[in-house]
Amino acid sequence: MDHPENEDIYKGLKVNKGVREVPSVSPYLKKRIKRRDYTPAEFTEGILEGNITILSQAVTLVESAKHEHQQMAQEIIERCLPYAGKSVRIGITGVPGAGKSTSIDSFGMHLIKEGRKLAVLAIDPSSERSKGSILGDKTRMEALSREKNAFIRPSPSAGSLGGVARKTRETIVLCEAAGFDTVFVETVGVGQSETAVHSMVDFFLLIQLAGTGDELQGIKRGIMEMADGIIINKADGDNVDKARLAASQFKNALHLFPPAESGWFPKVLTYSGYYNIGIKQIWDMVAEYVRFTKDNGYFDFKRNEQAKYWMYESINETLKDSFYNNKAVTAILSQTENQVLSNEISSFVAAKRMIDTYLANLSGK
Amino acid sequence: MDHPENEDIYKGLKVNKGVREVPSVSPYLKKRIKRRDYTPAEFTEGILEGNITILSQAVTLVESAKHEHQQMAQEIIERCLPYAGKSVRIGITGVPGAGKSTSIDSFGMHLIKEGRKLAVLAIDPSSERSKGSILGDKTRMEALSREKNAFIRPSPSAGSLGGVARKTRETIVLCEAAGFDTVFVETVGVGQSETAVHSMVDFFLLIQLAGTGDELQGIKRGIMEMADGIIINKADGDNVDKARLAASQFKNALHLFPPAESGWFPKVLTYSGYYNIGIKQIWDMVAEYVRFTKDNGYFDFKRNEQAKYWMYESINETLKDSFYNNKAVTAILSQTENQVLSNEISSFVAAKRMIDTYLANLSGK
Repeated sequence: MDHPENEDIYKGLKVNKGVREVPSVSPYLKKRIKRRDYTPAEFTEGILEGNITILSQAVTLVESAKHEHQQMAQEIIERCLPYAGKSVRIGITGVPGAGKSTSIDSFGMHLIKEGRKLAVLAIDPSSERSKGSILGDKTRMEALSREKNAFIRPSPSAGSLGGVARKTRETIVLCEAAGFDTVFVETVGVGQSETAVHSMVDFFLLIQLAGTGDELQGIKRGIMEMADGIIINKADGDNVDKARLAASQFKNALHLFPPAESGWFPKVLTYSGYYNIGIKQIWDMVAEYVRFTKDNGYFDFKRNEQAKYWMYESINETLKDSFYNNKAVTAILSQTENQVLSNEISSFVAAKRMIDTYLANLSGK
Repeated sequence: MDHPENEDIYKGLKVNKGVREVPSVSPYLKKRIKRRDYTPAEFTEGILEGNITILSQAVTLVESAKHEHQQMAQEIIERCLPYAGKSVRIGITGVPGAGKSTSIDSFGMHLIKEGRKLAVLAIDPSSERSKGSILGDKTRMEALSREKNAFIRPSPSAGSLGGVARKTRETIVLCEAAGFDTVFVETVGVGQSETAVHSMVDFFLLIQLAGTGDELQGIKRGIMEMADGIIINKADGDNVDKARLAASQFKNALHLFPPAESGWFPKVLTYSGYYNIGIKQIWDMVAEYVRFTKDNGYFDFKRNEQAKYWMYESINETLKDSFYNNKAVTAILSQTENQVLSNEISSFVAAKRMIDTYLANLSGK
C-alpha cells in the first residue's frame, strides 16, 4: 500500500508505461531524502537531540552506495565524532538456533529497565536483506522493538565484509552521538564476520548451547578464544544440569588457553533467554569487565588500537579493490591462477606479473 | 681463515687501503657466486642431482635482497617447480623452553633411520641472524647436523614476516626438488609467524609442556585450534604422570572445539625428546594424517588453497609495500593517524585521504 513504486504505476489512466529503470537504491531512501533535504549540520543537530527519525535517515546515508550520500554521511560522522565513544559496545555471536534473538530481547530489556539506551546493530555480509527482513528483525526482538529507548537496525545490505563492517562501525558513531550508551553488534558465528565484530566492540560475548557435540558444529574455529564471556543458553527446566555441566567443561577448557591481553579471565555463565533467568548476571559480568579494563588502561588502549586498525583496514580494502577491479588485472587473473595451480610458475612470480600489469595500467603505460 | 675479506686485506704489500664499502650482502654469498657463475639451468641440474652445496647456494640466492639474485632465484624455482611438492611438510611450534631443538633432533633422527631425507627450515622474522647463529642452529640439533640426509637451514635473516615466509616457502620448493621427502618448518609460538607456517605445511604440530599454568603464557591465543597434533614433551621420570594428566586435559579441551575442515581429529601424545621416548608415535600420527587426508582429498585441496593463498598474499604484500613506501603517503601518515586517534576524522576519511594522495602521486599528478 505505501510502496512508493505503486504511486508511479497506478497514478491514473494517463500513465505512460515506458521502460522503467531498476532503482539503484531503495526507493524508500529516495523518498525520505527528497522529503526533506537536511544539511549535514541539521542532520548532526537532530542526531545530538536524539531524534530517532533523523538518526535512521543518517544511517541510511551511511549505508547508501551513492557517492553524494557517502560524502554527506562522512560529513555527518565527522561532526558526530566528538560526541561519540561513550557507550559500552558488546559483540554478540552464536550459531543459528542458539537463541540469539530471544537472548538479545531479554538482555536488552534488562538494560532498558536499568535506564540505559540500547542500539542493536548487526553484521551479516552474506544475506541480501530487504525491507521484509527489517520487519523480521524487529519481530525477532518483540519486547525491545516496542521500546523507545531501543534502536534496532539490521545489517547493512549485501556487500563485501569490509564494506558492511565499516558501515556498522560508522553507525555506532551516530548511535553514540544520539545518546545510546549501550551498543550490541550481533553476528552469526559461522563466517569471517566475528573478527570484524571483535575489532569494533569492547566485550565479545559468545552464546553456546549445552552439550558437547553437534551444537558446536557451526561455530568457526578460533572464536572461542576471542570470547570475553561465554553464556550457555536454555539453562531451564530439565536442561539446567546439562547447561551447568557444559559451563564447567568450558571453564576447564578456558584454563588451557593462554591469558588474554586484557588481563581479563573469560567468564562462563548459564542463563535462559526465554525464561529470563540469569540475565542480570550477564550484564554484571560486562560491567565488571568494563571497570576492570578501565582500571588497567586496556579499555582505552583497545579503542585506540581499533581506530588504527580500521584506518589501515580501509586502506588495504581500497588498495585491493583498486587492484582486483582493474581491467588489465581481471583479464589475466584466472589464467595466472591456473598457472600457479599447475606448478608452471611460482606464487610469487604470478603475483609480480599481475602487480606489474596493474601499475603499468595505472600510470597509463 | 676462509673468510673472503681476508684475501683482500692480506693479499700482499701492495694492497691499496681505500675507503671500504660495508658489504650489502654476506661476503660468503659474493664469493660463492663469483667462484662459479652457475646458470639457472646448472643450478637446477645440481639441485635435482641432490648436490647440497648447490642447493645451499640457490637458497642463498632466494634469501638475497639483490635484484639480480632474486631474478635468478625465481628462474631456478620455476625450473624446480615440476619436481617439487612430493614431500610431507610439517610445521612445528612451541614456546622457548618447550624443548623444540631436542625434539626436532630426536624426531628427525628417527626419520633419517627410516631412510627419509629431511630438510629443517625455520621462520623467525624478529631475529637478525648472522653467521654465528647458523652454527648455533646446527649445534642445537647435534645428531641431525652430522647426517648427510639432513639439511638444516636457519630462518632467512630479518625482514617483514611476509618476506621471510615467502623465502622459506620458496626454499621448500628447492629442497623438495633436491629429493628431501620430509620438511620441517620450525617457528617460535609467540608471534604472527604460526599463521604463515600453517599456510605452508600439511601438518601442524604444537609442542607443549605438562602443567596448566605458566608454561602456556607464551603461546599465542588461537594456535591451539590450528594444531593437527599436540605433543607433550618431557614425559620422563617423575614427570610422566603430570604429562599424562596434561594430555587428557588437552584431549578434553579439543572436544569442545568445532571439527577441523580436514575431518581429522587432532591427537594428543606424550613423549620425551631428551630420552627419545614416544618419538615413533609422533611420526605414526603424521603418517596416519597424510593417509587420511589423501584418502578424503583434503591433502591436495589444501595444497592448492595454499598456492592460491600465497599468490594473493604476495599481491597484497606488494600493494601494501608500494603504498607505505610512497613518499607522499609517508609524509602525511603519522599526522593522519593522530587525527584519527583524537577523533578529528573517521578512520575511513583518513584512509580515503591517503589513498587519494597515493594514486595522485602514482599517476604523476
